[in-house]
Amino acid sequence: MPSFTVFKGSKDGSIQQSETKKNDLTGDQVLLKVTASGLCGTDMHYRTSDMVLGHEGVGIVESLGPDAKYLKKGDRVGWGYEHDSCGHCEQCLKGSETYCAERAMYGYADLDQGSFAKGAVWREAFLFKIPDGLPDEAAAPLQCGGATVFNALHSYHTDPVETVGIMGVGGLGHLAIQFASKMGCRVVVLSGSDRKKDEAMKLGAHEFVATKGAKELKVSQPLNRLLVTTSVMPQWDLIMPIMAAGATIHPLSVDEGNFTIPNMSLILNGITVQGSVVASRYVHKRMLEFAALHNIQPIVEKFPMTKEGIEEGMAKLDKGEMRYRGVFVVE
Amino acid sequence: MPSFTVFKGSKDGSIQQSETKKNDLTGDQVLLKVTASGLCGTDMHYRTSDMVLGHEGVGIVESLGPDAKYLKKGDRVGWGYEHDSCGHCEQCLKGSETYCAERAMYGYADLDQGSFAKGAVWREAFLFKIPDGLPDEAAAPLQCGGATVFNALHSYHTDPVETVGIMGVGGLGHLAIQFASKMGCRVVVLSGSDRKKDEAMKLGAHEFVATKGAKELKVSQPLNRLLVTTSVMPQWDLIMPIMAAGATIHPLSVDEGNFTIPNMSLILNGITVQGSVVASRYVHKRMLEFAALHNIQPIVEKFPMTKEGIEEGMAKLDKGEMRYRGVFVVE
Repeated sequence: MPSFTVFKGSKDGSIQQSETKKNDLTGDQVLLKVTASGLCGTDMHYRTSDMVLGHEGVGIVESLGPDAKYLKKGDRVGWGYEHDSCGHCEQCLKGSETYCAERAMYGYADLDQGSFAKGAVWREAFLFKIPDGLPDEAAAPLQCGGATVFNALHSYHTDPVETVGIMGVGGLGHLAIQFASKMGCRVVVLSGSDRKKDEAMKLGAHEFVATKGAKELKVSQPLNRLLVTTSVMPQWDLIMPIMAAGATIHPLSVDEGNFTIPNMSLILNGITVQGSVVASRYVHKRMLEFAALHNIQPIVEKFPMTKEGIEEGMAKLDKGEMRYRGVFVVE
Repeated sequence: MPSFTVFKGSKDGSIQQSETKKNDLTGDQVLLKVTASGLCGTDMHYRTSDMVLGHEGVGIVESLGPDAKYLKKGDRVGWGYEHDSCGHCEQCLKGSETYCAERAMYGYADLDQGSFAKGAVWREAFLFKIPDGLPDEAAAPLQCGGATVFNALHSYHTDPVETVGIMGVGGLGHLAIQFASKMGCRVVVLSGSDRKKDEAMKLGAHEFVATKGAKELKVSQPLNRLLVTTSVMPQWDLIMPIMAAGATIHPLSVDEGNFTIPNMSLILNGITVQGSVVASRYVHKRMLEFAALHNIQPIVEKFPMTKEGIEEGMAKLDKGEMRYRGVFVVE
């Protein structure tokens, strides 16, 4: 019976360390030794829940259930927001298992497992081999943050000749800049102030627009696509004039509340608003291959995988000071 | 110098009859004798503006400018919301001239011309031959209402195996039911009460759902697509549970204000919100051919093309009593 350390949320928001025991592996279950985990905004939402936190995991295969076929002991794998799906509904059958009605998602299922931990048990079917050349701490944030932005771009047919706007330079945004840039797009970054301009340009942006206090935004080309990675909704009176007709807007931040856009702008400009969440497995695999080919890596700040390390990382993210993704590392 | 009667809006909302004179025809301009005009909700918006009203016109070619090539005297043609575009921008070049920044649209350009009139001068390039078998009074409402709903379905790749929801049985909705049904889709109509159920089923609906006061909606299949033809926004807590993951929502009503949808529903279900306005010319032509092939016709109430007739029709539409599209006919 496998047992390992996990880190849970709790009512008062403090991180609780505990030991957990899992039954012997069945089916295609795989026991992993966790090596690294990204820290995502969603973890903050669940911080006061009695559940193991973390969903951007990387680890090494320790042992395999009787039906596991594709992995072997010692393989380096990652996992993200989704851990299982029914496998027989229309969404699953067409490769959109992230929209399966019985999907097992972070925060909704498998609450005794997470990546803020030293071990984890997951179905082999929802694990992804990490390409060589991607270090553990770089691969971890790709499992959710990377998958989310790559999926928006790739699954909705971003064309290399597009001008792509990235709103927000944070955990998602700094990865989106790299992906869009390596896809060949002209990348325009929209951020509050000029503070992150140099870094954004180094990551592959072609233009940088500071929005705070602006009366009008100037871009060399109207945006064919806009990835909104901030939790604050865009100020449409500034944004709509720089959108191309027929453009697609992707709200990516997981936030309660409404998505609101002026109806006439939407209609008269033929705008698409596209909801999406993380990535289906085949898209997730393409994302990892694309990241490895183009050396797309998050900029990370490392913390130890301990109660104190996790609390320190979460405090920093909470203050908006993370540059740009926190990663907890098992020493 | 052509001259003819036109009917304009005015400050107090009364309809003003006047004679207008146009210069001799130049370029590909065509002089038409108007025979019929649909009455659209947008005409109500412009009723207090000093402009000729109407944009669902049908007429007979009377004479042609020196560069007109494709039409001849006596041809029966229609026109809609758009009268001209620049012809050289990206949107025009790719056949999306409805999104041309210099488009000449109803309410914004050519305010001395309209379909509430006995004559009109338009560019040949923006006139559409009416297929035989479509009477004038049936063809008129297709020029905007028909184009709007067909465009939403056709330009965004409605698949015959889809379940398509039509919200609202009015000028747009009663045409959308017919188009979606003839495209092979399962058609689910959502309407306030059961009042229009029989008619909706006759028009081709497979299911009818009365929404007013309902706590929960029941459909045989989740909706892959929803055309919102009402000006009132959907009540999302009722609607989202019957939408399929990956579904597309089309807000079609031309209304100021915001389009608002719960962010988490949008994201977690991979929903697309698709803005669109009327139809590009090649789509408009396909619409007319499809309507003629399948005998898709609006249900109309006819009024004479006079000040009194127009005021009577507008009053009826205003009260929500039109079944389902008013048409003004030149006797």
